[in-house]
Amino acid sequence: MKLSLNHLFNNNPPISAEILCIGSELILGNIVNTNSQWISEELTTLGINHFRQTTIGDNLNRITKLIQEISCRCNLLITTGGLGPTPDDLTTEAISRAFESPLFLREYLWNEIQEKLSHKKELIENVNLRKQCLFPKGVQIINNPTGTAPGMIWQPINNFTIMTFPGVPSELKSMWKESAKDYIKNKFSDGSIFYSNTLKLTGISESTISKKIEELLNLRNPTVAPYANLEEVKLRITAKAKNNTEAKLIIRPIKDKLKVIFSDYIFGEDDHTLASIVIDELKNKNQTIVFAESCTGGLLSSTITSVGGSSKVFKGGVVAYSNELKESLLNVPSNLIAIHGAVSEEVASAMAIGIKDKLKSDWSISISGIAGPEGGSNNKPVGLVYIAITGPDKKTTIIKKQYNSLRNRIEIQRLSVNDCLNSLRLILLSIK
Amino acid sequence: MKLSLNHLFNNNPPISAEILCIGSELILGNIVNTNSQWISEELTTLGINHFRQTTIGDNLNRITKLIQEISCRCNLLITTGGLGPTPDDLTTEAISRAFESPLFLREYLWNEIQEKLSHKKELIENVNLRKQCLFPKGVQIINNPTGTAPGMIWQPINNFTIMTFPGVPSELKSMWKESAKDYIKNKFSDGSIFYSNTLKLTGISESTISKKIEELLNLRNPTVAPYANLEEVKLRITAKAKNNTEAKLIIRPIKDKLKVIFSDYIFGEDDHTLASIVIDELKNKNQTIVFAESCTGGLLSSTITSVGGSSKVFKGGVVAYSNELKESLLNVPSNLIAIHGAVSEEVASAMAIGIKDKLKSDWSISISGIAGPEGGSNNKPVGLVYIAITGPDKKTTIIKKQYNSLRNRIEIQRLSVNDCLNSLRLILLSIK
Repeated sequence: MKLSLNHLFNNNPPISAEILCIGSELILGNIVNTNSQWISEELTTLGINHFRQTTIGDNLNRITKLIQEISCRCNLLITTGGLGPTPDDLTTEAISRAFESPLFLREYLWNEIQEKLSHKKELIENVNLRKQCLFPKGVQIINNPTGTAPGMIWQPINNFTIMTFPGVPSELKSMWKESAKDYIKNKFSDGSIFYSNTLKLTGISESTISKKIEELLNLRNPTVAPYANLEEVKLRITAKAKNNTEAKLIIRPIKDKLKVIFSDYIFGEDDHTLASIVIDELKNKNQTIVFAESCTGGLLSSTITSVGGSSKVFKGGVVAYSNELKESLLNVPSNLIAIHGAVSEEVASAMAIGIKDKLKSDWSISISGIAGPEGGSNNKPVGLVYIAITGPDKKTTIIKKQYNSLRNRIEIQRLSVNDCLNSLRLILLSIK
Repeated sequence: MKLSLNHLFNNNPPISAEILCIGSELILGNIVNTNSQWISEELTTLGINHFRQTTIGDNLNRITKLIQEISCRCNLLITTGGLGPTPDDLTTEAISRAFESPLFLREYLWNEIQEKLSHKKELIENVNLRKQCLFPKGVQIINNPTGTAPGMIWQPINNFTIMTFPGVPSELKSMWKESAKDYIKNKFSDGSIFYSNTLKLTGISESTISKKIEELLNLRNPTVAPYANLEEVKLRITAKAKNNTEAKLIIRPIKDKLKVIFSDYIFGEDDHTLASIVIDELKNKNQTIVFAESCTGGLLSSTITSVGGSSKVFKGGVVAYSNELKESLLNVPSNLIAIHGAVSEEVASAMAIGIKDKLKSDWSISISGIAGPEGGSNNKPVGLVYIAITGPDKKTTIIKKQYNSLRNRIEIQRLSVNDCLNSLRLILLSIK
């Protein structure tokens, strides 16, 4: 069930790139390779054809041979990893061997590194950082604004350029944005770009979506591709065009169609999150919100407060994990808990009303449920969650959810938070 | 800063494997390749040498050529992706072309698939699922317990075996565990296994650690390798041995040495988290804890409550995002905020004492700081955080942190939570 942009590449591309990630930690499976995904996305956006990614461990001979091999089949090689100061960092040496070009110390880089680390003298003395200043003759240096290891741009043979980056994702990204991106755009792009616009949906499964838009999934320009995670499905519309304006024109009619088909499920686009959408809505209305959380244990609050500027609408909340706190902090009558249990429509409702009264806000959300792995019963199994939302009109909406009990604790918490925010979004929309 | 197990592979290994991930969504950067990490880890555990991973898009010629290329340099190829029913799923066809061996329909598989989808008749009619039953002659089928696409085990030429898996991680994993793992173990393992034990450290940087144990990082069996993320550094000790018991004996003395060198920084091993360690400590003492959070907005609570069984020690807390709530819910005197500001030693301290009194617990933690991106000043820049911890003896410890102001909001929140939990851990240790 995959969709490809390959067809867009089929008119004799002038340039093709490869990505090479170097590091035994990748080969051993110790870390997930997020760099190759990030670079791939960047290359796609720049309209650079890219057919292969390779990962290899820290072995000088193997890296050297692989680089020679790659130089025979593409024009641009992007490497990550192996630029550090330890004996296992071998990328630059392997490249110099691959093209039989010796390394020389760039004195000014060594001065720069010493300056960067002037507050960490012992590092300069004890670690072989001079190694990071060794480069073949004639290479162009890629400045590393956040770390010590510079990268390089080098054309060792005709029609083949290498660009090296560290394996640390934040360093790679800042170097890419500051220096590499424009270089690649100017030097290698055929003038066309890829531009994507993503619709974000929740409350509908990827397979249901795919079935409804089979025809659109077979389009060639723009392409439409669905990607799902636990909480949401993204529909990514990608156009190949001369520029962003043209791309947007190509995307527009398809986007409009999708908006009609999935109007109830689309909550935003691109960088939007459910939290950011809800915050924006509340800001527009100049209203505030508070939370009373039980089974989500603070995840709803932290999801809202992970968005900058959330303090404009979010006053705060209570994590009432114990029944005692539900009574003392939220004014939930103790007999209500005794009769219905903490996980019940009645208690969720009392929690939402209690926190709204106490903290004097326009809106409140409460959640009470069983996130597991313990605490479930035949009557109230793991995955049972009650959400209550009280609004300025003091009307309380109750949402009952029974998540699949095979879901783990964290998944149930995440799904609960998602349903809180989406339910609030729908209520806010309905009173627009 | 990478360390390798490659040296363990240097005594003429009998078998070497490669991983090939097929899918344009990987090449386009739409999804992160978690499969190659997962398989790498499995191969490492099985003691199978593995030197290279490749990713390629859905293009028949390119996949065919690449498989021929790989068959010349290793003995075992694991592929993922491209087993679905759509025209873009090309793996089996490419393999059959690579070795000029035609595909035949396995009638019994077709019956199985129809049975699996008997409740989804329209899928059977509309999608070319028969494609998933085509295989070269003589291959062994890998049953897919959770999906429709079977995999295969095939030795098309001497000393070269291919095993194919779908790209869906859950299907790959269940097929691997049910069928592939034992096959590989019996057929390809030299009888030795890799076993790892990981020490987890916080409050110390990867470079400081590496400098202190340079000699240990050069060991060959066991190997010691550091991996860092935002909050912690892991020291992974890996032994190659006949079995787990022998491996543990090899690991033991090195682990003991590391424990002496880094005693203050090691908080746990393997699956431990700071939250789980703190919860265990409080359970042992039969004590409870509550939180008053400002700048972390609920992240401390949700970190604790992401651990199953946390309700035994965590009663709840307050997210007092606004000053109003700091006063009304935590009894922070309003003049204290007026004089010192919400982000101050005095207010953090009052918050910790206020919540502890109000919720009647043994311990309390409060956090007040500036997570950014807005709200910073010359006097109190973004990244300034005060943590207060009050204990059963009513003594309050204040921790002042100034995180790098280049850190983003979420990083500052995560670092703050980490410092809360680690400070509490150290206090709990000191009164043991």
